[in-house]
Amino acid sequence: MCLNENERIDMLYSNDVKIIQSAEVFSFSLDAVLLANFAKPVRKKNGRIADLCAGNGAVGLFLSSKTQARIVEVEIQQRLADMAQRSIKLNKLAEQMEVLNIDLADAYQYLEKDSFDTVTCNPPYFPNLDDSKKNENPYFAIARHEITVNLEKIVKITSGLLKMNGKAYFVHRPERSLELLTLLQKNRLAPKKIQLVYPKKGREANMILVEAIKDGRQQGIRYLPPITVYNEDNQYGSFVQEILYGGKKSD
Amino acid sequence: MCLNENERIDMLYSNDVKIIQSAEVFSFSLDAVLLANFAKPVRKKNGRIADLCAGNGAVGLFLSSKTQARIVEVEIQQRLADMAQRSIKLNKLAEQMEVLNIDLADAYQYLEKDSFDTVTCNPPYFPNLDDSKKNENPYFAIARHEITVNLEKIVKITSGLLKMNGKAYFVHRPERSLELLTLLQKNRLAPKKIQLVYPKKGREANMILVEAIKDGRQQGIRYLPPITVYNEDNQYGSFVQEILYGGKKSD
Repeated sequence: MCLNENERIDMLYSNDVKIIQSAEVFSFSLDAVLLANFAKPVRKKNGRIADLCAGNGAVGLFLSSKTQARIVEVEIQQRLADMAQRSIKLNKLAEQMEVLNIDLADAYQYLEKDSFDTVTCNPPYFPNLDDSKKNENPYFAIARHEITVNLEKIVKITSGLLKMNGKAYFVHRPERSLELLTLLQKNRLAPKKIQLVYPKKGREANMILVEAIKDGRQQGIRYLPPITVYNEDNQYGSFVQEILYGGKKSD
Repeated sequence: MCLNENERIDMLYSNDVKIIQSAEVFSFSLDAVLLANFAKPVRKKNGRIADLCAGNGAVGLFLSSKTQARIVEVEIQQRLADMAQRSIKLNKLAEQMEVLNIDLADAYQYLEKDSFDTVTCNPPYFPNLDDSKKNENPYFAIARHEITVNLEKIVKITSGLLKMNGKAYFVHRPERSLELLTLLQKNRLAPKKIQLVYPKKGREANMILVEAIKDGRQQGIRYLPPITVYNEDNQYGSFVQEILYGGKKSD
């Protein structure tokens, strides 16, 4: 019905959300699932949530089951924004969610400053260095590399959109965590919680989740219990199993 | 022989180090053991290591089995410095180790700037706020609260003592980790490795270990596998068991 060529529908079983995906563009990954799980979005109906660098809308779609607030997905890539829009329809969430297919740099033309309770973001992870190896597929390159936006700009706009005491949630690579934490603090966002994600026992972290509060006290950060993705048999551990499949079995 | 009244000798079994302790002053705790385990000190005989806020010398004594380099312990409290000095003798380490009973603020009068390969520090954890509850025993109060020195001064002197590419190792409370990371970066010390310590599965971290390199690239921080101190039966987990007791059984 609403699928274009080479698209498929994937499910997040834990909350029965359906997502239109395509191998030709960037698909959501565990990062988006963990970010949506980590975030504590505003819950009330007149609350406002923005998901920046939204891609095909995974984070916002996953969040929708945790809140009654309005969710706006901001995505620069037309094809991904279109997929997100159709996923919203597919999940009958059009009253709660919308997609803005805009450059984040123009956010304030469409979204009121100091008006959001919650902002989430799964940004492009890699700096746009001249010598960095990028995917030749521009959909992937833009999703992974800071081609159309960089972390500094994202953090600045996140802060601008949030109300005082609004909360921001980021997922990023550990190697850029100091940069992220520094940028947050420079932009009135006090980091409050960190959760590290480790692929397996005995391995270094490969993801970091950060909660920050606008105009919060720059003190008292907490490190939540670590997440280990795979168990020793290379199966998803119980935590990830639960947020992917809920109580249900994975098979 | 070398014990004063109300003193005892404790052992770190994993490396057979003996430490003079007393219930009347601050005793070493797991923090010191984890810091010494985390640190990768210079190993060569003409290398130089400083342990700041040394207390009764635990960190330096534990490090001594990992290196042939000279170790200087800097401790402001005369009674603790004296205990450290006697522990050095007790372990027959007088050729490798010495104690400086000085105020860290005077460090450069005794220790050459830019001359150390490794600096370790288990600092007082709590700010010296007027309203903070401090132990009435001054030995404990000085070890736990920033009464004679604060983190900013410690980091500054750590950086001043280190050679270019020298390494600093800190243990601190997670709630002060952002302050520590910011101070390191402001003082030419690039954080390179972080290891979080969690008391038990499902609990938040209660210790953070940080490695920083003087004049290193301010990028690419790594988060080592997390340490969980106690297992579900409230016994030390295998990692802590190993660094406390080595291969030996704890009983």
